[in-house]
Parts: sequence; structure tokens; C-alpha cells
Amino acid sequence: MNQYDILFTLLNTTHPGNIGGAARAMKNMGFEQLALVNPIKHPSAEATARASGADDVLHRARVHADLDAAIADRSLVIGTSARRRDLDIPMLDARALAETVAGLPAHTPVALLFGQESWGLTNEEMLRCHYLLQLPANPAYSSLNLAAAVQVVAYELRMRLWVQAGHQTAGQPVATHVPVSQDKMASFFSHLEHTLQSLEYLNDNNRVSLMKKLHVMFNRMQPLKHEVDILRGILSRVNKYLD
Amino acid sequence: MNQYDILFTLLNTTHPGNIGGAARAMKNMGFEQLALVNPIKHPSAEATARASGADDVLHRARVHADLDAAIADRSLVIGTSARRRDLDIPMLDARALAETVAGLPAHTPVALLFGQESWGLTNEEMLRCHYLLQLPANPAYSSLNLAAAVQVVAYELRMRLWVQAGHQTAGQPVATHVPVSQDKMASFFSHLEHTLQSLEYLNDNNRVSLMKKLHVMFNRMQPLKHEVDILRGILSRVNKYLD
Repeated sequence: MNQYDILFTLLNTTHPGNIGGAARAMKNMGFEQLALVNPIKHPSAEATARASGADDVLHRARVHADLDAAIADRSLVIGTSARRRDLDIPMLDARALAETVAGLPAHTPVALLFGQESWGLTNEEMLRCHYLLQLPANPAYSSLNLAAAVQVVAYELRMRLWVQAGHQTAGQPVATHVPVSQDKMASFFSHLEHTLQSLEYLNDNNRVSLMKKLHVMFNRMQPLKHEVDILRGILSRVNKYLD
Repeated sequence: MNQYDILFTLLNTTHPGNIGGAARAMKNMGFEQLALVNPIKHPSAEATARASGADDVLHRARVHADLDAAIADRSLVIGTSARRRDLDIPMLDARALAETVAGLPAHTPVALLFGQESWGLTNEEMLRCHYLLQLPANPAYSSLNLAAAVQVVAYELRMRLWVQAGHQTAGQPVATHVPVSQDKMASFFSHLEHTLQSLEYLNDNNRVSLMKKLHVMFNRMQPLKHEVDILRGILSRVNKYLD
């Protein structure tokens, strides 16, 4: 994460819990530089509680009376906001933001601005921004919690490095394959366990560990409905034989 | 979002605030199906407060005494957990999870499991899972807040559709371009405003709106240090002429 120099900057935050939640979200994703501009209350017990193991980020937060002082040494400033028709500031989503920041020379000083919870960034604050960040939210309910917005942006920034380092796991396109529902799998596992007990394959010493392994194996199989019918047909056959 | 049928399932949640935060995160990303298995406290004023405008999701949440009842009608089950060396369950990150779920036939019933805040999913709960989800967190502080984890997964699911629909904004690789710091831009804007006032280009009627436009234009320029020097050289030249 050494290539980033990102200052998460919270403006006029009204709920101390959000400051703590933002600190935790940042540290979880490997970021530690927090600036608070005119927080209503700081420090606070509520922020410390929500920060959990990220209280060090909270305690080292820089507190400023105005935004310009907070971002004086920053080269690139990105603010979170819905699109503003009256200001022609380029828009980014969080993934494009991560791509943009990752494309800068290492250690370029960046500030990410998060406005007051209810009204977001003011006009004055937005005028400091080279880009505005908009998240792809539900149009019917688009306002994310402050700490949640910090979480998404910090996640995308970390994920960008994760993908670059080749760590991303591959998705599993299984387009035509719908495994059976869980109640059918549960019935199958009961049937299986009962059968294996009847077979005296399971005993008090090995039952838990063997059933655990069998669960994992058959879940990985992701059987279709007719496949589960086949498996249960086999079990019934075994049971009938034992009777 | 109609192609998804995803049940967000919170297990043994101890902090009601997290239930509310999860409901909000879900609704912000367009998801509304919430199941609570053995919550310590539900309903609660704290959850309603944190849910904010997503209290409808909270009120419609299904509450169950055990996990199997909650997921009985689900075909695919994915749990959030760090890798478990003793269980060979395939791992996904959140982006691969979104790809996997988007690759299913429309309306495939999926459950996403989120374990208790402190210890996560139990062995028994994990054995229900076809996949485990691990987020790329800071190894030194990897445990995300419950609502934050819900936010990241819901965001990736929504983002998957967003990208598919061609909405994703392009990142701006600006590899060799480091704009000047904000204090230098602030000095430039002061210099510019002073000069334009001296020129009587600005007056009390147009000052605010014109300076707003100029801010946006010059921020979009992202000038380098020597370019700001050039601009200020021009302004100094104008001022000298006016004197």
C-alpha cells in the first residue's frame, strides 16, 4: 500500500459514530491518514467505540478549522457528491477513482473529501475538487452512510492493488447450473448420516469429522435436483439392503 | 436489479446498530431481503436509527431461530469468512462473488451469510456454504464491521450490473502528471481574483458566479507547478500594467 498517500478528509461531520466507523473502514483497507474539518464533536467515546481496533487512526487524526488548511499539501482533490448540473466537474465512480489514483506517480498527495452527512459538500468545498465521486446507488435511496461511503472507496483502492498483484479470485460462471435448495440438501445429509450410521461406518469418535468432510464434498458437487434424487436412491437402496 | 434474488442473512448478531447499518447498506444498493437468525435484540430503536430511510427493510426482515429454516428455499449459499485450512471450501473475493452470482440464471435463490461480529461463522454454519467470501483486508487489522462487509458485497453486486449496462466511468491514467498542491492553487485563485477585480472584470453582481466557473476550469486544467508560475507571471504582468 506504500504507493498511496491518501488523506481521508471528513467535513463538518455531525455524528461522532461516523468518524469512528470511517476510521475503522480506512484501517481495514490499509489507510491511516484521517483529517477532520470542523467536526461537531471530537474526540468522543462513541467514535472510539465504533473505531474498535482503529482507535490509533482516530487519535492521530488531524483536526482543522477550515478545508484549505487540511488540503494545503495535496495535489489531487476528489469529493464525493451526486452529479451537479451547474458545475462541470468530471465525475468518477469508485472503481475509476481507484484506477485514476493508482495511475498517479507513487506518493502523489491525494485528498478524498466526504461532506456533512445531510447535505454533502457545499459549493465552496466542491470548487476545490478535480473530480467528483458518485457511487452507483439505488436511485430511490441513494444516500450512503458516511462510514459506508468511506468503506466502498477504501475497498476499491485496496482492490485495485489486489487485482494488480494478481490476487483476484476467479468468478465461477455457472449459468445453466442451479443447485438444489438447501432443505433438499439437508434432507440428503440426514439420509446420508443415518445410512452411514446403520452401516456402522460412523461411530461416536469419527462422526463429527467425517460428516464435516462429507458436507464440504457434496456442497462442492452442487448437485442438481435429479442428481440428489439419484444419491438418495442409492442410500434408500443401501438401507433396504440393511433391513 | 430484477435478475437477483439474494437473501442477506445475519447470524447471531449482537449489536442492533449493525442490523440497522446492514439494512441501510442493502437498500442503498437496491437489495431488500433481510433474514435475521437469532439476533440478540430485534426490533430495536438503535437499529431503526442506523437504518435511517431503510427502516422498511428492517421491518420486513424475516426472523428465524435457526439457519436451516432461513435458507431452506435457497439454492446457492455463500458465507463470509477468512480462509479455513481445515475446510476445503472454494474461496471468492467480493468481485468474483458478484461475477458468480450474476452468472447464475435470473432469480436463482442465493443466500449470503454474515456471522456473529466477534467470531464469524461457526463450523456448522460454514458447512452450509458452497463458497466462502474473503475481502482483501489489511492483514494487521482484517475484521470489517458487519454493516461495512454487507456494504462492500452489496456494492460489488450492484457495480457488476452497472458495468454490464455500460455505465462505468473511465479512469484517468495521468501517470506523469502531478498537479500542484492546493495551497499553490489557492494562491493562484487569490491572485486571479484580485487581478480581475483590478481590471473591473469582476463586480459585486458577477463575482461569485464567475469565480465559481474559473475554479472549475482551472481545476480541470490540473496545472503543473511551472504552468502555475506561467499563469501567475501573466497576472503579475497585468497588475504591473494597471499600476
